[in-house]
Amino acid sequence: MKLHIAVLPGDGIGPEVIAQAVKTLKAIATEYNHVFTFEYGLVGAAAIKKTGSALPEETLELCKKADTVLFGAIGSPQYDKDPDAKIRPEQGLLGLRKALDLHTNIRPIIAYEDLSNKSPLRKKWIKDVNLCFYRELTGGIYFGEKTWSNDGNTASDTCTYTRNQIERVAHSAFKAAKSRRNKLTLVDKANVLASSKLWRKVVMEMALQYPEVDVNYLYVDQAAMQLIINPKQFDIILIENMFGDIISEEASVIVGSIGLLASASLGDKYSMFEPIHGAYFKATDKGIANPIAAILSAAMLLEHFDLHEEAALTRRAVDKSLQLHITTPDLNTKYDNISTSKVGDFIEDFISNPEETNLN
Amino acid sequence: MKLHIAVLPGDGIGPEVIAQAVKTLKAIATEYNHVFTFEYGLVGAAAIKKTGSALPEETLELCKKADTVLFGAIGSPQYDKDPDAKIRPEQGLLGLRKALDLHTNIRPIIAYEDLSNKSPLRKKWIKDVNLCFYRELTGGIYFGEKTWSNDGNTASDTCTYTRNQIERVAHSAFKAAKSRRNKLTLVDKANVLASSKLWRKVVMEMALQYPEVDVNYLYVDQAAMQLIINPKQFDIILIENMFGDIISEEASVIVGSIGLLASASLGDKYSMFEPIHGAYFKATDKGIANPIAAILSAAMLLEHFDLHEEAALTRRAVDKSLQLHITTPDLNTKYDNISTSKVGDFIEDFISNPEETNLN
Ligand SMILES: CC(C)[C@H](C(=O)O)[C@@H](O)C(=O)O
Ligand SMILES: CC(C)[C@H](C(=O)O)[C@@H](O)C(=O)O
Repeated sequence: MKLHIAVLPGDGIGPEVIAQAVKTLKAIATEYNHVFTFEYGLVGAAAIKKTGSALPEETLELCKKADTVLFGAIGSPQYDKDPDAKIRPEQGLLGLRKALDLHTNIRPIIAYEDLSNKSPLRKKWIKDVNLCFYRELTGGIYFGEKTWSNDGNTASDTCTYTRNQIERVAHSAFKAAKSRRNKLTLVDKANVLASSKLWRKVVMEMALQYPEVDVNYLYVDQAAMQLIINPKQFDIILIENMFGDIISEEASVIVGSIGLLASASLGDKYSMFEPIHGAYFKATDKGIANPIAAILSAAMLLEHFDLHEEAALTRRAVDKSLQLHITTPDLNTKYDNISTSKVGDFIEDFISNPEETNLN
Repeated sequence: MKLHIAVLPGDGIGPEVIAQAVKTLKAIATEYNHVFTFEYGLVGAAAIKKTGSALPEETLELCKKADTVLFGAIGSPQYDKDPDAKIRPEQGLLGLRKALDLHTNIRPIIAYEDLSNKSPLRKKWIKDVNLCFYRELTGGIYFGEKTWSNDGNTASDTCTYTRNQIERVAHSAFKAAKSRRNKLTLVDKANVLASSKLWRKVVMEMALQYPEVDVNYLYVDQAAMQLIINPKQFDIILIENMFGDIISEEASVIVGSIGLLASASLGDKYSMFEPIHGAYFKATDKGIANPIAAILSAAMLLEHFDLHEEAALTRRAVDKSLQLHITTPDLNTKYDNISTSKVGDFIEDFISNPEETNLN
């Protein structure tokens, strides 16, 4: 298969972890005789520095003409301390999601047996957790109107949803539930918010079309608690944009490190794959950034193009690295000097030679 | 001291747990020669059933003429399944908060040594956690404009904050930090939302007036994760209304049960005390509802009126009940038939006779 992949490493640890994902994809291409080509673009603070925009026109064009996009991370402490900044790294990511109409963000949360003592949660609580978020990604309060009073003393944001926006992500979520354990939980705040009432109404109607799926409704505050006290109750969690941001990042504690969580952002025409962690500036260029989230995002990319064997091999490589403690310090309980690129090298070696790779 | 207390038991388990809080306050009054009088009012689904309104005029009048308000819980499954309902139990609670201008909601999170194996979190993770939320309670998206398109297919909510709304809760939070460990964390989404940018801007300015307080800024998605992976880093968490709802309920996992969390809602003129748990309909009238959150809310009420010795005795009674496993099933690892009112009876006995009370 030929795939032309737009690569947007972005800020902070983005470039380091994306380098390992590209390494992985190259190894897969070699093993399976695919032709993967990579074309790099600027985004986020890195792009602002060079072009004045967090999402330069060329980057957007590059993504549109590519078959898919591999994304690192954006953000910078400089902007975190400056709430007045008009141009911000986040505009790169939000702008891409909007421009490519990536409405459905899929975030799987799978507890790894080998890592369970890295999770703050007791082992028996998290064993066998396997849930998946379907987060709406182009609507809601992130994309609503923002207003400021003239004196700068009043600010507001608007959260809007339309039936159509809800239906498209919900259909994907229902279908995913059918292919899994037939359980879907809608997380909203329908006891207070109009937009959440619309979500609940639409999903209640749609549930009739998917009679085999057991549908539950949970308020977001209760979901934040239930996710920790009883994560095994969940299969598919359908959730609007901002609630999905919050609750899915919370879910990283189940797995033991946010450095393990991958995501796929899908639209009708375009797709993008990115780790859910951020730019994590403090760790930049120290060789301590966990590349697994980026590598698993590459595995999701492979699956998206029906390269299932390739994706499975990538996942086996990741499992093996965890088993053998070839992991960065956030996860490692055995060795303390395994770097980002060393993890990538191990994955690459394993893919080239699955039977023989071991720690040396 | 004379205190006239408006009591609003509300829905679900509200009446049962509030009965134990009233029992506690009566025992305190007897011991310390105070005159506490109680006047009951309707609120929530119970009020809708009898009057058609979730917050009848008489209830509001009762609260306004009382010295303070003790509140149970509101909500009912009937409304959860009906997103179209125009009159809803939540309007009772939100209406009261607004009408009494209860802008500052204080939610302490203290890990109890005795209960740490009831928390899903490993012991060493939660030992010594002692943090406190200052949640803004009358602004933000809960109280913003709600609109529906004519065809019912588009809905929106607006989140607005003014400098003044932020300053009043923030001043209380800064003062609380000064009386504690001098640490304050603002939780917001200032990398995306205008209202959050205003929060960050105002708090950054105010921080200059409190140079002894170490101020940190955290995005809400990261806070949802940090709260679990490193809860000891927090002292005071300052947070807007909806984020506070989500993150403070999440924090209940640290303590081991939401049935332990109390809160105070304070305005310039009025005050209200309520457990943070909801109506928990499924448990209604089974005698299994944990009354401790309601009883600790009564302790916060006592503290609010500077009855510190009384509050301390109430807390000692609660500690003792936990030590002796006189707790409802959500917490009990030893006995399985201790009911809501039995816990209340123990607290009452202990207050009357602190030296002699034991399980019998
Ligand atoms: C950077 C930010 C805008 C983004 C979001 O909140 O969507 C990030 O947190 C994420 O979850 O992908
Ligand atoms: C019932 C609901 C409106 C309320 C809220 O979200 O504020 C509750 O969850 C709370 O936290 O007190």
